[in-house]
Amino acid sequence: MMEKVFSHLIDQLMLLPGIGKKTAQRLGFYILKMETGAARKIGQAIIDVKEKILLCKSCSNIAERDLCSICANPGRDSQKILVVEEPNILYAIEKTGEYRGLYHVLHGTYSPVSDGRMPERTIQGLVERLKNGGITEVIIATSPNIDGEATALYLAHLIRPSGTKVTRIACGIPVGADLEYADEVTLAKSLGGRREM
Amino acid sequence: MMEKVFSHLIDQLMLLPGIGKKTAQRLGFYILKMETGAARKIGQAIIDVKEKILLCKSCSNIAERDLCSICANPGRDSQKILVVEEPNILYAIEKTGEYRGLYHVLHGTYSPVSDGRMPERTIQGLVERLKNGGITEVIIATSPNIDGEATALYLAHLIRPSGTKVTRIACGIPVGADLEYADEVTLAKSLGGRREM
Repeated sequence: MMEKVFSHLIDQLMLLPGIGKKTAQRLGFYILKMETGAARKIGQAIIDVKEKILLCKSCSNIAERDLCSICANPGRDSQKILVVEEPNILYAIEKTGEYRGLYHVLHGTYSPVSDGRMPERTIQGLVERLKNGGITEVIIATSPNIDGEATALYLAHLIRPSGTKVTRIACGIPVGADLEYADEVTLAKSLGGRREM
Repeated sequence: MMEKVFSHLIDQLMLLPGIGKKTAQRLGFYILKMETGAARKIGQAIIDVKEKILLCKSCSNIAERDLCSICANPGRDSQKILVVEEPNILYAIEKTGEYRGLYHVLHGTYSPVSDGRMPERTIQGLVERLKNGGITEVIIATSPNIDGEATALYLAHLIRPSGTKVTRIACGIPVGADLEYADEVTLAKSLGGRREM
């Protein structure tokens, strides 16, 4: 019995992750009560992001021009490439402020177990970047789960022959966590990765 | 360091209730990965709802034409008006399937304690509807909190002189709840509202 335009909005909002019927209705009623201009800005931002965002020609990060803002920044260390699965991981690493090199975004993982899929285009892109020379280290920051590890191994195997150093981010106990509750695999990894103090 | 179009989308999504930075980013990255057409439909639905939805000339419910789908339905009992604070309550009551009369949406409450605000336009609209005659009962379904009760009292005071019956929804123990955990005020209300079996 809801007005069609409104129930259409609810249906559309429910396509977003983590948004069920109740949340969609709450958002819908909120949007109804907003200023028209404010609601239009939200809607337009969703449309624009799809129309104005490209993938960086070099690293496949999201970009507004041929190169993303990181690749276009001459202040970055262009000898290092850090490989991530998705752009959100890139931004998480950027927030640490600990990394000044470049990135390479795979947009997926190599999943030998589940579906055997492979982000071929971006992996090929990485190989091309290495061929161009000047890269001294490739840091693989895929997740330490089955697919992430498989991707890391595959990439290492692919890159090592070129002579470029390939490193993997450290696995271990999260900062602030209690050793008592760490799982055995993480504990083992953290022991194996121990460093001199 | 995020691309501007993208961080603008994050900012816009964060204007919605219950959506913080983390959720907005998750939604943003999800939208980035959607089909362009699908994302456009979501954005357009948000824009459309503000541009195509009006308030019903009679009851102030959301409507696509002069009258909302309920007021325009000749099958409804036009002698009863149920007063609610917001359209979402109306839809919640519709879902019960227990009510076949008309509604009146206040879009707010009379808040004597907090800010003294008053949804004057819609209250005036209700008074006009009663003047036109034919209404035998006004059911006040504002929330049983301070503002809702104040609004109910105010409306009862306003309507009673016209001779129209004014009723209030029942307060009591929610179905399925355990009496042990009911608060005293609700218990007292539920006792006061007891009915013969």
